[in-house]
Amino acid sequence: MSVTAPQGFRAAGVRAGLRAHGERPDLALVVNDGPEQVAAGVFTRNQVKAAPVLWSQQVLREQRLRAVVLNAGGANACTGPDGFGDTHRTAEKVADVLGCGAIEVAVCSTGLIGERLPIGRLLSGVDDAAGTLADGEDAATAAATAVLTTDTVDKQAVRHHGTPPATGWTVGGFAKGAGMMAPSLATMLVVVTTDAVVDAATADTALRAATAMTFDRLDIDGSTSTNDTVLLLSSGSSGVEADADAFTEVLTEVCDELAKGLQADAEGVTKRIAVTVTGARDDRDALVGARAIARDSLVKTALFGSDPNWGRIAAAVGASEAFVDPQTLSVTVNGVLLCEAAAAVGDRSKADLSGPEITVEVDLGAGEGRATVLTTDLSHAYVEENSAYST
Amino acid sequence: MSVTAPQGFRAAGVRAGLRAHGERPDLALVVNDGPEQVAAGVFTRNQVKAAPVLWSQQVLREQRLRAVVLNAGGANACTGPDGFGDTHRTAEKVADVLGCGAIEVAVCSTGLIGERLPIGRLLSGVDDAAGTLADGEDAATAAATAVLTTDTVDKQAVRHHGTPPATGWTVGGFAKGAGMMAPSLATMLVVVTTDAVVDAATADTALRAATAMTFDRLDIDGSTSTNDTVLLLSSGSSGVEADADAFTEVLTEVCDELAKGLQADAEGVTKRIAVTVTGARDDRDALVGARAIARDSLVKTALFGSDPNWGRIAAAVGASEAFVDPQTLSVTVNGVLLCEAAAAVGDRSKADLSGPEITVEVDLGAGEGRATVLTTDLSHAYVEENSAYST
Repeated sequence: MSVTAPQGFRAAGVRAGLRAHGERPDLALVVNDGPEQVAAGVFTRNQVKAAPVLWSQQVLREQRLRAVVLNAGGANACTGPDGFGDTHRTAEKVADVLGCGAIEVAVCSTGLIGERLPIGRLLSGVDDAAGTLADGEDAATAAATAVLTTDTVDKQAVRHHGTPPATGWTVGGFAKGAGMMAPSLATMLVVVTTDAVVDAATADTALRAATAMTFDRLDIDGSTSTNDTVLLLSSGSSGVEADADAFTEVLTEVCDELAKGLQADAEGVTKRIAVTVTGARDDRDALVGARAIARDSLVKTALFGSDPNWGRIAAAVGASEAFVDPQTLSVTVNGVLLCEAAAAVGDRSKADLSGPEITVEVDLGAGEGRATVLTTDLSHAYVEENSAYST
Repeated sequence: MSVTAPQGFRAAGVRAGLRAHGERPDLALVVNDGPEQVAAGVFTRNQVKAAPVLWSQQVLREQRLRAVVLNAGGANACTGPDGFGDTHRTAEKVADVLGCGAIEVAVCSTGLIGERLPIGRLLSGVDDAAGTLADGEDAATAAATAVLTTDTVDKQAVRHHGTPPATGWTVGGFAKGAGMMAPSLATMLVVVTTDAVVDAATADTALRAATAMTFDRLDIDGSTSTNDTVLLLSSGSSGVEADADAFTEVLTEVCDELAKGLQADAEGVTKRIAVTVTGARDDRDALVGARAIARDSLVKTALFGSDPNWGRIAAAVGASEAFVDPQTLSVTVNGVLLCEAAAAVGDRSKADLSGPEITVEVDLGAGEGRATVLTTDLSHAYVEENSAYST
């Protein structure tokens, strides 16, 4: 169900003919029928922002959205003022068919950077999508599927709180992408909906907290897209006011499930790797260290080869900005302690990495800081997928 | 000739049996017969430093070296106090055969992290090496070859200043490694010799200036070794005092040739890529931007695929810490302007990347800062080499 699981939302996914090849759908529409239209958004930190990001950031200042339109087949990034005009026209078209203002419509795009979108086909697609809007499971899946690019499966998640609809509320969402909030060029687009009654400030705070602990801790290739966008829309139609903490918790669960779905379907993935750094001076230092390990090409190729090469892990964290004292550094891979005080302990062959899940645990022994970053291995398939054609 | 080209130096390379496989030589010795023994060193910035780095940093405080002993077959990193003891014994052994103090002997190691060296074989190897020390071309090549790991060719360079020996001096050196000064796990070890008369302060300043513009601007995979070491030894035996500027210039030329040799022989290389950022706010910002592009997996896989995917280049620099204004951003690949004001110009198919050399030029249009970073593509061979066995 994802985005249509909460009451007050309709969705659609259609084929507008935006993709270079194939018959796949490529245009999605998510509509909030209210009664409320509270919204919040988190966007790429890349200085080079796509036109739809610039547009959506602007309209989100009002903290309300009636609809989100998303397209695959082109990122509309590095397309100049004309590209921004295309985004503007798209939002106006959606506003036109829904009878609202363009300022109530967010736009998300994904695909190749630097190419204009076929705007005529896109605008026709909006008509088609509006004509097929529905609130069932099929509609949500159609929307979740239409925005996929190098993804191989759709990613959807739903969580309930209490007993909806009378005495509870629901959060649902879909995601596309092979990467993370700030980092990833295989753009991440996420739409999360809820029928909980939340004010704009609560929605914004909860979304930032949830993304910081989920999408922001997924790092596939260290690259940062021009288009990354996570949007939260609340219809308030459950009539049940959500406690801020409970809302943040449920929202984080939905985002976590979607983030893990992105990890499992990342480009070229053969191993799903969770890197946890403990004993750092503080949580920030732990995150810096974990991210450095998760991004290290030599670590990622070793794990692709099922090689518990802890020396590369020690070197990667040692080279990071996190404080590392070799004398208190230990490394555990898949539960087997391999390095203590920066020296070998035990038998490295006991760490069996032949399965698809790998845990890397680094204890810096310097404090209480802790963080986990999810990543994937660096495989032949990753190289193939990213060298064989432009994405 | 490399390290034996300047007067006053002898070298040797022998097989001590340190490598897991094969019959290749693995132990090198370079001896400075004086009359002077001025020395300077630059080391990895990794917080996890190998035993030979800790040792050599310590002895370099005296700013003089009689000899350098180098081994392949083991990095002697993350080996604890026992590993440090092995390095110490190695230096003492060299001191013993040369009749000097251990404090006059630097040690360099390369190979797998976390394993102890077979110290008995290593010490026997020092005897063998001492017995074959010579000042000719063959001896220099034997030393340059003995320290190779995943390298496929030895890297040597020589430059003369004036007319040596009577009215000039010479700088020579060898290098091993597939990476760079701070970054690279495929450890970079470099020994440069000269017969110029230079004081310790001049040697140190010149070496830091030379490495900053050469080895420090080579970035193969963004990883930083526990063992990277660059040593400069001066015998002063030309009797000709070198002007500091001239010495820095010639030393930089030798380091530049060696760095380009490392780039050309990097792991899995199919393309040699020079990334130049101009128009940055300052040189530091230019370097930050160029390094971000040079490290980006999506840029490197695209260039492996001969794809002039300038959007990934714009995204990589935009995601860096360097200041980027999309309105003044341009990207030129192999001389063809593909992006201006962060939008497409011209025909991307005109940028022919089928050859082995690729230039990426990014003009940020924000100032006068400028920097070049050398890198390579991310190929199937890189993944193969780094996943198929432990290095």
